Amino acid sequence: MTEIKRAAVLSAGSWGTTFGKVLADAGREVRILARRAQVADAINDSHTNPDYVPEVRLPDAVRATTDPAVALDGADLVVLATPSQALRDNLVAWKPLLDPAASVVSLAKGIELNTLLRMSEVIAEVTGIPTDQVVVVTGPNLAPEIAHGQPTAAVVACTDLDRAELVQRAVAAPYFRPYTNTDVVGAEIGGAVKNVIALAYGMASGLGLGDNTKATLITRGLAETSRLGERLGADPRTFSGLAGLGDLVATCSSPLSRNHRFGEYLGRGDSLAAAQRATRQTAEGVKSCRSIRDLAHRYHVEMPITEQVERVCYEQVPPSVAVRELMSRDMKAE
Amino acid sequence: MTEIKRAAVLSAGSWGTTFGKVLADAGREVRILARRAQVADAINDSHTNPDYVPEVRLPDAVRATTDPAVALDGADLVVLATPSQALRDNLVAWKPLLDPAASVVSLAKGIELNTLLRMSEVIAEVTGIPTDQVVVVTGPNLAPEIAHGQPTAAVVACTDLDRAELVQRAVAAPYFRPYTNTDVVGAEIGGAVKNVIALAYGMASGLGLGDNTKATLITRGLAETSRLGERLGADPRTFSGLAGLGDLVATCSSPLSRNHRFGEYLGRGDSLAAAQRATRQTAEGVKSCRSIRDLAHRYHVEMPITEQVERVCYEQVPPSVAVRELMSRDMKAE
Repeated sequence: MTEIKRAAVLSAGSWGTTFGKVLADAGREVRILARRAQVADAINDSHTNPDYVPEVRLPDAVRATTDPAVALDGADLVVLATPSQALRDNLVAWKPLLDPAASVVSLAKGIELNTLLRMSEVIAEVTGIPTDQVVVVTGPNLAPEIAHGQPTAAVVACTDLDRAELVQRAVAAPYFRPYTNTDVVGAEIGGAVKNVIALAYGMASGLGLGDNTKATLITRGLAETSRLGERLGADPRTFSGLAGLGDLVATCSSPLSRNHRFGEYLGRGDSLAAAQRATRQTAEGVKSCRSIRDLAHRYHVEMPITEQVERVCYEQVPPSVAVRELMSRDMKAE
Repeated sequence: MTEIKRAAVLSAGSWGTTFGKVLADAGREVRILARRAQVADAINDSHTNPDYVPEVRLPDAVRATTDPAVALDGADLVVLATPSQALRDNLVAWKPLLDPAASVVSLAKGIELNTLLRMSEVIAEVTGIPTDQVVVVTGPNLAPEIAHGQPTAAVVACTDLDRAELVQRAVAAPYFRPYTNTDVVGAEIGGAVKNVIALAYGMASGLGLGDNTKATLITRGLAETSRLGERLGADPRTFSGLAGLGDLVATCSSPLSRNHRFGEYLGRGDSLAAAQRATRQTAEGVKSCRSIRDLAHRYHVEMPITEQVERVCYEQVPPSVAVRELMSRDMKAE
């Protein structure tokens, strides 16, 4: 495999733009696809994306366009940074423009509603690209910190270790240290479920509960993530690593996390609609809690926290009732 | 084994006093041993311990004394709540007063300097009480939250499951939910090493590092804890549970944690002595980092975070240098 020269980043949101900066700082040429011309112009003219990555100057090697054909032209690395439930529709449109030999990186963290597919499965199904060309980048990666050059470790997962190493080299920047892993299932389940656990954590925060309770939620949350992952064939060690524990802890503990903040609004008594207004968009965990719960049911895996989050989001159960039920579950031994 | 009626809590510090409250709220008679008459009087006369558990009214069933013989008289549960490095000397004095059939609970979290013994080993060695009578209580248990009745889960570990269940029943209060475990080694190693990791976490905070870095420290910290524990015969699952991950996350994320705060002072550039003055006493992790490092060397276990914490505390290495070395360790795969 030849070294990666040019990357297309499809979506100019917070993580997409930040990942474009990482790629440029790692020595790649980058084309970011923006939906709005205003965002593309800001990136090209003033090297900023004020809506999503404020106060950060983007490298000159980051260029933007609103035309998918321009973004994908000559790209040997394609980075998919759209929200999980929009990925399929976007891919259908982009498919004819993809180089069939390109490495495809998924930054999306979720499980598709109804099909219950992981993002790498959606990518392979829609594009026909073999699964060993699909790479998952995950870990304790709060975008605003990376955008400001805070030291960060990440996981680059691909069933093909050579390709994982190719992408590892392509994204290694002074402040961004990628580690390879071949457990794509574990990386994706860790990334998807952590958003749901962070919602529960945020609710506990909003309800005024303390750090003992919140640490218990993280512990039990990682346990149910691991149960689901192992049932789907993941390596249990992935969940003790950066893609499991690391990502979960970063998302739960950071006030920058959208899922955490969303849960906090719900915990304080706001409706789903009010929380959506306050955070300006729906958190991934709200969309994915239902598909993850469905996946748990299909495979007969117990996921009590996910069950309760789904009830709060879609069945009008007050967060106080949901969290109380979680904390009073009868268990004698761990 | 007959149900526990009377408990002696030996030490009237923050966790000892709070644990006495839990025992009383669980229906036991409690005698707390205080070193200073002033503290014993406050507990007996106004049901408070203003120095260590401010603003909390203690139950009437909690009484205090400065006489170990009075505290231990008729006690079928003996709770040891002294700092780890003081435990041996205290036990030598208390030994003649102990009922040889009593269950002995260790709340101390550390490894003894020089001997490199765990606290349960120190207890068995000094008192001659069989190890299956020694019970370790641990978990995400920040004392101030428990004192205020915040819902909290804990681990009650004993090699004898019947005794673990006996103590579980004796400490189960509406806000305090104990779970049993037979892995005493795992419970003790988790509890001891987490203080050292929390020091590193606090240093990272004090240095202004972000949540991505701090989540990575927690992840790598739990990994080295688990490596040491497994080498000593612990069950790896203990470290994914409340006694491992749960305790570590609570200690690291809470501003109430003494180890976290101590590390933060060091990270901001204060000397060990200045940090001691600011936090009023030495954090457990400062004392235990050396014995844990020695244990790691004896058993040839790699513990890079513990190594660096020891260097900061005892070898004049600046925290910025120590943390930078940790974050730049060369690792290709997780």
